Amino acid sequence: MKKETLENQALRTQILIFDPPEKKAVFKSPPPKRDNLDGKNLGFSDVMPKAELADVKPAVQVLENGDVQFRFYAPNAQKVEVAGWGGGFSRERNPMVKDEEGWWSTTVSGILPGFHYHDYFVDGNRMVNPDGLCGYGSFYGVNFFDLPTDEDEFWFLKDVPHGDVRMEYYKSSVNGRTKCAWVYTPPGYDAETDKYPVLYIQHGVGENETGWIWQGKLNLIADNLISQGKCKKLLIVMNSGYAFTEGEDPVFFPGDFDAELTKDCIPYIEGKYRVLTDKHNRAVAGLSLGSIQALFIALKHRELFGSVGVFSGGFPIKRPEYDYTDYFNDAERVNSDFDLIFVSGGDNEGFLQGTLPAIEKLRARGVKITDYHRPGFHVWDVWRYSAYEMLQKLFM
Amino acid sequence: MKKETLENQALRTQILIFDPPEKKAVFKSPPPKRDNLDGKNLGFSDVMPKAELADVKPAVQVLENGDVQFRFYAPNAQKVEVAGWGGGFSRERNPMVKDEEGWWSTTVSGILPGFHYHDYFVDGNRMVNPDGLCGYGSFYGVNFFDLPTDEDEFWFLKDVPHGDVRMEYYKSSVNGRTKCAWVYTPPGYDAETDKYPVLYIQHGVGENETGWIWQGKLNLIADNLISQGKCKKLLIVMNSGYAFTEGEDPVFFPGDFDAELTKDCIPYIEGKYRVLTDKHNRAVAGLSLGSIQALFIALKHRELFGSVGVFSGGFPIKRPEYDYTDYFNDAERVNSDFDLIFVSGGDNEGFLQGTLPAIEKLRARGVKITDYHRPGFHVWDVWRYSAYEMLQKLFM
Repeated sequence: MKKETLENQALRTQILIFDPPEKKAVFKSPPPKRDNLDGKNLGFSDVMPKAELADVKPAVQVLENGDVQFRFYAPNAQKVEVAGWGGGFSRERNPMVKDEEGWWSTTVSGILPGFHYHDYFVDGNRMVNPDGLCGYGSFYGVNFFDLPTDEDEFWFLKDVPHGDVRMEYYKSSVNGRTKCAWVYTPPGYDAETDKYPVLYIQHGVGENETGWIWQGKLNLIADNLISQGKCKKLLIVMNSGYAFTEGEDPVFFPGDFDAELTKDCIPYIEGKYRVLTDKHNRAVAGLSLGSIQALFIALKHRELFGSVGVFSGGFPIKRPEYDYTDYFNDAERVNSDFDLIFVSGGDNEGFLQGTLPAIEKLRARGVKITDYHRPGFHVWDVWRYSAYEMLQKLFM
Repeated sequence: MKKETLENQALRTQILIFDPPEKKAVFKSPPPKRDNLDGKNLGFSDVMPKAELADVKPAVQVLENGDVQFRFYAPNAQKVEVAGWGGGFSRERNPMVKDEEGWWSTTVSGILPGFHYHDYFVDGNRMVNPDGLCGYGSFYGVNFFDLPTDEDEFWFLKDVPHGDVRMEYYKSSVNGRTKCAWVYTPPGYDAETDKYPVLYIQHGVGENETGWIWQGKLNLIADNLISQGKCKKLLIVMNSGYAFTEGEDPVFFPGDFDAELTKDCIPYIEGKYRVLTDKHNRAVAGLSLGSIQALFIALKHRELFGSVGVFSGGFPIKRPEYDYTDYFNDAERVNSDFDLIFVSGGDNEGFLQGTLPAIEKLRARGVKITDYHRPGFHVWDVWRYSAYEMLQKLFM
């Protein structure tokens, strides 16, 4: 592994902080008088005591030989373990050893390159490591790290022009709540007057609007591709895919996100941004649960979307919620409706056994489908590669 | 407390997710074949097993009588406690009680209204609650909640036009790293052609560029004030205040942030955004450590900044790093240099005993200083009010 690979800032960026400091202030004792409610004799030094600077110990450190060091601070614990989520980092728990300061650590060999959600177990309880990279997954805060390879530079932070990521609030007509969409605008958007195509892209179950940025590094992937002239300048809109209403029955789809996207989000985006509004310049994609949402929405609204990306969700043309079997019997119609049907997945998560044969059946009928797969599990490195590949074929 | 107060979405927004879903998918068992590296016989259902939807139990729930319920999931723990950081929520640990599912809970009375960082202790180890609101504080992930009052609506999420929050990358000439600034642009920025004034505002020690949005709700404060015509439309730029270089000695200021702000960030912002670039339309402010950074930078660069805000940092005109005693002896010069010197703090953190007398001394010499204080500790509710007050006086 190249030294620059291990040192790229993208490996340290996370939802809690973009560039974690190398040093931190350590407060040796709590301010003594902070509970003094009457405020008498309180000075600044009473509420903010003197601090010493100490080096930050990263929770996860990838070594040049590919081994990974983990650390967790729990001075009063009896047992601390770390384990992956399966796939490239086994669910088997790795025991950690405590030093005299209360830091537990271990070095694990044999983890496969890629993105790894992982858990710490403190005396048998799953815990978040506050010193580690953190994102929203599994419906709460969860730690992750990347074991990179030199091939990963397509999602690295480089000295290229960077687009913005903007938080946009819009109102959901489904449940009346204010939603936050994250919007990537390409480098130069503010200075130019062009109109751009838009990709709407969804996260997986348990994740949210922040996943494609902090886990997926999608803004960096787009920055890098655009700087090389390998993809169209475009906007990318990332939504939280949950649109539950009160008292709603449990169903596969988490509420009527279809309505929220098409009736609320898209009109909001198109009213505010300089974007192209014909179907050939509007795409929807997603990963896992989000890929099924994307496929369903694209098939239902063929007047709105000219391209669809289905990452790690198979290619289900029939489900309890819909049945497009007849539609896909008419290959000419499908090929006329869609500029791009992009289907991807990891070799180790069923793509070869399940998805590819399903695609081949449709191809035998003449349906045009672009597929992409690579070694990998149901995890973010496959989805980064999927986005990287799809962006180079989208809106062309 | 009004029902609408407890239900405002701003009480639930956090760095990990803007609008947490009411339900979550629960996976009853891990996918059995996920560790099967050769990929044989893997189907989608092997990697993503069937899930059931369950109601989300919020980690913190404020009751209408002002009591606060806390929950923490740790089925194998022997003891779980919750405690505040002092001030309005005591450092005394409150024991929690386990139910049969493994959730620990307790209801705490007597917590004062306001913003509360707090800690959970699992068998004596400080832990982050992954089900709770989370932000970056104390140099890592930390939980917080608000015990609101009906007066708090100035920072609530309302049906008013919302500005954007944008993530901007720029290069630090101090340490060569790429920095991320969060930039608030006012409602209408994209559609209008006006130029706007800019406030640069800093976080406290252990916090970062995200603090003023997720803890401070500064974008919502500005949205609400602008909608009422109570403050100028402006840009607000939030930076991480750490500019450490390798091997740097421990000092009070965390690196040469002064250089980073004035040489790197401001030129970047002014090259990209439609902003006014005279000193009367440029301000710098901060809280706690950030307030001293702001004061130092404003005094050093009086050609750049016409206004300064010092929240909860006293008003130190002399420190080991600088001495402006002589300067402040010349009140006419100070009053000519600054349109606004805004100094604020909480009554219970030393403002009345320390800061106000220092200000009065300068006032006696003729220096114009606007002060603001209210009941409160060294904590975000005082800083939200400080920003709310300062914004109504800034650039007028």
